[in-house]
Amino acid sequence: MYEIKKIGGGVCAPQGFYAGAVSAGLRPDGSDDVAFIYADTPCETAAVFTTNKMTAAPIRHYRKKGAFKSNFILMNAKNANAMTGPAGIDDIDEILDVLQEKYGVLENPVMSSTGVIGVRLPKAEIIEAAKGFDLTCRDSLGAAKAIMTTDTFYKMVSSEVVCEEGKRFRIGAIAKGAGMINPSMATMLCFVTTDADAPAAELQSALASVTPTTFNAASVDGDTSTNDTVMLFSNRKSGVFDAEAFREALHAMLLELAQMMVSDGEGATKLVTFHVTGAASDAEAETAAKALSNSLLMKTAIYGEDPNWGRVASTIGASGVTCDESTLTIAFDDVLVYEKGEILFDEATEKQAAAVMKREKFSICCDLGMGEGAFDAYGCDLGHEYVKINADYRT
Amino acid sequence: MYEIKKIGGGVCAPQGFYAGAVSAGLRPDGSDDVAFIYADTPCETAAVFTTNKMTAAPIRHYRKKGAFKSNFILMNAKNANAMTGPAGIDDIDEILDVLQEKYGVLENPVMSSTGVIGVRLPKAEIIEAAKGFDLTCRDSLGAAKAIMTTDTFYKMVSSEVVCEEGKRFRIGAIAKGAGMINPSMATMLCFVTTDADAPAAELQSALASVTPTTFNAASVDGDTSTNDTVMLFSNRKSGVFDAEAFREALHAMLLELAQMMVSDGEGATKLVTFHVTGAASDAEAETAAKALSNSLLMKTAIYGEDPNWGRVASTIGASGVTCDESTLTIAFDDVLVYEKGEILFDEATEKQAAAVMKREKFSICCDLGMGEGAFDAYGCDLGHEYVKINADYRT
Repeated sequence: MYEIKKIGGGVCAPQGFYAGAVSAGLRPDGSDDVAFIYADTPCETAAVFTTNKMTAAPIRHYRKKGAFKSNFILMNAKNANAMTGPAGIDDIDEILDVLQEKYGVLENPVMSSTGVIGVRLPKAEIIEAAKGFDLTCRDSLGAAKAIMTTDTFYKMVSSEVVCEEGKRFRIGAIAKGAGMINPSMATMLCFVTTDADAPAAELQSALASVTPTTFNAASVDGDTSTNDTVMLFSNRKSGVFDAEAFREALHAMLLELAQMMVSDGEGATKLVTFHVTGAASDAEAETAAKALSNSLLMKTAIYGEDPNWGRVASTIGASGVTCDESTLTIAFDDVLVYEKGEILFDEATEKQAAAVMKREKFSICCDLGMGEGAFDAYGCDLGHEYVKINADYRT
Repeated sequence: MYEIKKIGGGVCAPQGFYAGAVSAGLRPDGSDDVAFIYADTPCETAAVFTTNKMTAAPIRHYRKKGAFKSNFILMNAKNANAMTGPAGIDDIDEILDVLQEKYGVLENPVMSSTGVIGVRLPKAEIIEAAKGFDLTCRDSLGAAKAIMTTDTFYKMVSSEVVCEEGKRFRIGAIAKGAGMINPSMATMLCFVTTDADAPAAELQSALASVTPTTFNAASVDGDTSTNDTVMLFSNRKSGVFDAEAFREALHAMLLELAQMMVSDGEGATKLVTFHVTGAASDAEAETAAKALSNSLLMKTAIYGEDPNWGRVASTIGASGVTCDESTLTIAFDDVLVYEKGEILFDEATEKQAAAVMKREKFSICCDLGMGEGAFDAYGCDLGHEYVKINADYRT
């Protein structure tokens, strides 16, 4: 028996965690661009990284360490420190060495970066700014804002899990991500803190079990970045742990963050759930759902609020999954437009389906009629704003 | 020894082929929308179709026949006759039965359609219009225009192959396609006629050998349609055949048509060749090249004329092929921006690379430094026009 409650506080909601942000002058408007999460005792750590083979320097730096306890994450926006070779890793060591000397309390600090690829980190600026951190500060919101890139809103959630006899632990998270969001992790960073009394192995397996149906089910543009990172730090301070409750809370939080990212997809105006059922297997349902969420023709039809169900059928057919027009059923929310070979799309249903597509959130439901496989993927529309944002990102 | 010469005439360039178009009133402006290709003797036939599992009725109708000789192709725009079930196939039979009776000379006529998915063919209108065909007409251009959908220009090529002792045969083709163009065939139709004295098996194997590096190497938006078709008809009238020359001429013609389609990609302003070399295998080169040509972030950067080489590196890394930043080299045409771990991108090279991207045609060259594998994929930019065209296609 347990209860999961939403609370405030972000990554500072669990006991013993601190966060804050400063400006290194990397943004034209001078707003904060460098942030930290600090724990006053060493933490068990777990992480999931991008599948991109051109892994950015911060990820290589993290992986070099093997298993370790840490109590400090340094974050920066505006520069991904990717395609920077061994020098990019040396830059991280140099920055963190200075901070370890300055603060005296950092254990195995790590770094996480997002921004332009192929430019060396502005080391001096980041060091100078990071020297101004206040490690007693609990400004999770400031950190969430500092790591934003093309995000239009910050992403932060926290939960309290109440177990038997009122024993409780907390989980907090901040994240960033709006573009390059894709089924295999994307330029998204997510940092999760908890005071749950969870050993490292449990953290890692919980993270691995919830990412496939949360971040990896979300797509903005089908691109997978060099920097994608989800880190989970536990200082075990609550002395309480319930594996099932922990996973359930973590799943709900990461799903909420993933949906926030899709809603904030560059230029996106709609959050669409591609609800695939009746597939020959869960894997086939996932293939079909992700094909739909990534299809340019689907995304532009959604932008145009055009219930073009033919594109839904065609995209499923092109995805390679087991399917047949005589067993397929398609609905926009509860408006059936095609059922097992029968076209139900007429003037009346077109009007109803078009009304569904005017909603900010809706589902495109496809039953393949082949078996029991199911998967939900999350996507958004693609409109003029996406083109505007991405045609000239660097400048 | 042979010579391949470009000539005029399209599908009517080879002896014994006729073509023309009429209007069935399917287009708002009343321009021609129904077309035919007719041969005055039965032809050997070969075809390659979409990999989409929701195969359109015309393709099912063709496949039902097995091996056969034919002398007539009926084509229509504005309606794909896809997702129309067994009734969609019956519609074709009914239309063709009427035309067989009317003209008395059609042998195993076939049909090919393009347009909206999920709407039954306007049978009566098509029959009425097709009764007005003039089978002695040689209007290849009219047929090429009649099958256009979002195409902004017609696509037609023809060649004469001169073999030893001046013996010669001809090949002609018309095609349509501007959107839904993708590596595994896309809403593209292509009809090829020849008077080469080629047996059916040779036609099929020639077609299968040239499509992977022509139509299947071209991408506008990564979507694969229900109707994609390449048909090749030979009436053998020239009595001349040279397998090697035939393949070379066919490859050149289909490559030209494929590049025309990409140039005419919905809203496209640039034709980009993604030239991948040094891959561990040709298959890996193809994977990387197609990942680049399909990447939304690449396509928008190309639209913005932004030499964002980091996106090139990231896209290759995300494609899953064997690669490493220390062996990768990237150039925009001849402007090197990244070479085996060294960033050569500075103010001067950025200016040069940006100048390359202002060209209507250029190459993005990536050497993976892993082996001898190579592949060229063809893509285009994605800009505001694409969104405009696709957000409201049906209406």
